[in-house]
Amino acid sequence: MTQPWHPIPGGITAPAGFLAAGITAGLKASGKPDLSLLLAPEGAVCAGTFTTSLVRAACVDLCAERLQASGGQARAVLTNSGQANACTGDRGLIDSQRATQAAADRLGLAAEQVLICSTGVIGVPIPMPTLLAGLDPLVAALSAEGGAAAARAILTTDLVEKQIALEAELGGRRVRIGGMAKGSGMIHPNMATMLGTLTCDAGVPAEVWQRMVRRAVDRSFNAITVDGDTSTNDTFLAFAAGERLSPEHFEALEAGLTAVSQHLAKAIARDGEGATCLIEVQVEGAADDTGARAIARTVCGSSLVKCAVHGRDPNWGRIVAAAGRAGVSFDPEAVALWLGEHQLMAAGQPLLFDRAAASAYLRNDPVLIRLVVGAGPGSGVAWGCDLSDQYVRINADYTT
Amino acid sequence: MTQPWHPIPGGITAPAGFLAAGITAGLKASGKPDLSLLLAPEGAVCAGTFTTSLVRAACVDLCAERLQASGGQARAVLTNSGQANACTGDRGLIDSQRATQAAADRLGLAAEQVLICSTGVIGVPIPMPTLLAGLDPLVAALSAEGGAAAARAILTTDLVEKQIALEAELGGRRVRIGGMAKGSGMIHPNMATMLGTLTCDAGVPAEVWQRMVRRAVDRSFNAITVDGDTSTNDTFLAFAAGERLSPEHFEALEAGLTAVSQHLAKAIARDGEGATCLIEVQVEGAADDTGARAIARTVCGSSLVKCAVHGRDPNWGRIVAAAGRAGVSFDPEAVALWLGEHQLMAAGQPLLFDRAAASAYLRNDPVLIRLVVGAGPGSGVAWGCDLSDQYVRINADYTT
Repeated sequence: MTQPWHPIPGGITAPAGFLAAGITAGLKASGKPDLSLLLAPEGAVCAGTFTTSLVRAACVDLCAERLQASGGQARAVLTNSGQANACTGDRGLIDSQRATQAAADRLGLAAEQVLICSTGVIGVPIPMPTLLAGLDPLVAALSAEGGAAAARAILTTDLVEKQIALEAELGGRRVRIGGMAKGSGMIHPNMATMLGTLTCDAGVPAEVWQRMVRRAVDRSFNAITVDGDTSTNDTFLAFAAGERLSPEHFEALEAGLTAVSQHLAKAIARDGEGATCLIEVQVEGAADDTGARAIARTVCGSSLVKCAVHGRDPNWGRIVAAAGRAGVSFDPEAVALWLGEHQLMAAGQPLLFDRAAASAYLRNDPVLIRLVVGAGPGSGVAWGCDLSDQYVRINADYTT
Repeated sequence: MTQPWHPIPGGITAPAGFLAAGITAGLKASGKPDLSLLLAPEGAVCAGTFTTSLVRAACVDLCAERLQASGGQARAVLTNSGQANACTGDRGLIDSQRATQAAADRLGLAAEQVLICSTGVIGVPIPMPTLLAGLDPLVAALSAEGGAAAARAILTTDLVEKQIALEAELGGRRVRIGGMAKGSGMIHPNMATMLGTLTCDAGVPAEVWQRMVRRAVDRSFNAITVDGDTSTNDTFLAFAAGERLSPEHFEALEAGLTAVSQHLAKAIARDGEGATCLIEVQVEGAADDTGARAIARTVCGSSLVKCAVHGRDPNWGRIVAAAGRAGVSFDPEAVALWLGEHQLMAAGQPLLFDRAAASAYLRNDPVLIRLVVGAGPGSGVAWGCDLSDQYVRINADYTT
């Protein structure tokens, strides 16, 4: 299958019928945009994946319950940035319900059709009067050009906004997929990313859409790690709304869905707190894809590997050591390793290599690490970033 | 049982009959001591625990096989520092065998009675002529006062040497336990620490000793984490040699063994690369001890928690978030949390607390984090250290 998708400008409002807005409501002390809204067309189906942490924010419970109860029917997502509303007890859930009810009233929807995502400091409740006062201007700002403003308003410590849109001709009609995401610390999602929203203007049955989204998330957001810390608020919501797509195009649609998700996931990893480069780890030759992905993610998440890349130090021993503790069986004597084009190991043993050239290669962005662990059919990829002194500074002084 | 153990000066040569030495053989470019030897009395039994990494150094294979084959009979440990001799292929095992054979010849032992530990850069073989040339002066330096010199010669990036000795009267006779360890990076042992050696001058049947050592390691070296990276070379070897101890004193002996192991484990965590303080995480109220220990270790290993402690930032949300991703079931609504004497949470919700006082508390060393996760009988402790920009600098420039 030729890849039919090509990039177009915009993000979540690139697909037809979706409206979005992002404004400064005053939730953040910095005065940066902090409240966003996405409105999907009538008939939209929504698939969500959420943090696997036992400690999860009230907004995550609310989203998961509403999507479960409705079989994936939802029309809007409100996102507040600045306060995570996690570990806020009963008040957390009450505030989430009040916020979605107030947004639903202004949109002419039932509260159950509105979802909410929160991001920011854990344990801090949402300043509700500020949020509620922001809803009228937020709804007034909804527009088919609002995707970029929404993508800005969901950020916290991110340095750059993250959005993308792809377009394809499927069965003689134009289909568009758009997405936005935020996240740069506490990034080690499991079944979801920090916050991500995806839109698609082709109609797909809810259960088909849910399966597609789950697979795309496994190959994207679940394959990144910044610091090994899974968040309390990780949420990915994907909306599909429009004329029904013929099943013969589902495979092509899923390819687009995966491409958008991978773009956003890599953008999160590249924007990891203090990061200076994206690291891509490719693992081949494992017994199965699951094992390969686990090895890739362990290497990508190793503090020692991340520090070595940051220092442009081709310390390949740390890569193999990290692979060895991934909990996946392979033959250490079969390992081969490349940094970009530079092969550093074969048959489990170090090769003589040009250390200066390999070190110079580590100044690239992205840095590609390729590890062959045997002759099995399993392969997998993970994305992460280097670990810099800047990461420590950002996270040593977050709330103070 | 009253704790009968009290500290005495010295380390591995404090127990009667053990000899040790540490010299500069020239394995390290720095000119620091780099070769050490421990000689145990005749009749010694030895229990070993080793890295669980799939990728493990030749010396680990050699130690594990010899102890297995002999049922725990060994007389000596040679340790070279500077080169890990991991991922060095066939040559790695040949070099390990040659080194132990050469040491055995000089000690009048069989090669099978001599063990070897290596630490340093992965993938770098041991400069064998240098090591072999060091054996004569090393054996000549063996003495009952050599414990401190041996403890210095096993270090790599450690800032301080780590040794301890305890003494007790058990059944009218004096029993001594001594220990030394090294390690400050790539520290997240599983069944073993980086390198640790323990000596005891009471005789214990090999299988009893093995069980005691395993339990002590679980409560000490397996409860620490510096950076989540399990090493290829983690090895802990414990020797017991002397007049047989009566079984009625085994419990007291194990208490001493555990105390020595915990002292060394905490010393490793405190000396974590770039660390400015020891962090102790106590978890209570879990369903069982295993779960409590897993939660404690996850909190202790969280980069975000470690950065927050380094920044003296009482960001308790990160502690609860880390507990939530430990893979252990508990009721988030039951969580209570203390930083030292400062209670920050009760019943899963934040309390008002004096932020300045809590921040000031984080200037203590050690920092104590206490987490109650329910009403279950399970409790556990883990030790780690803060994460500083200095950790990154050390590990960005290790081999270059």
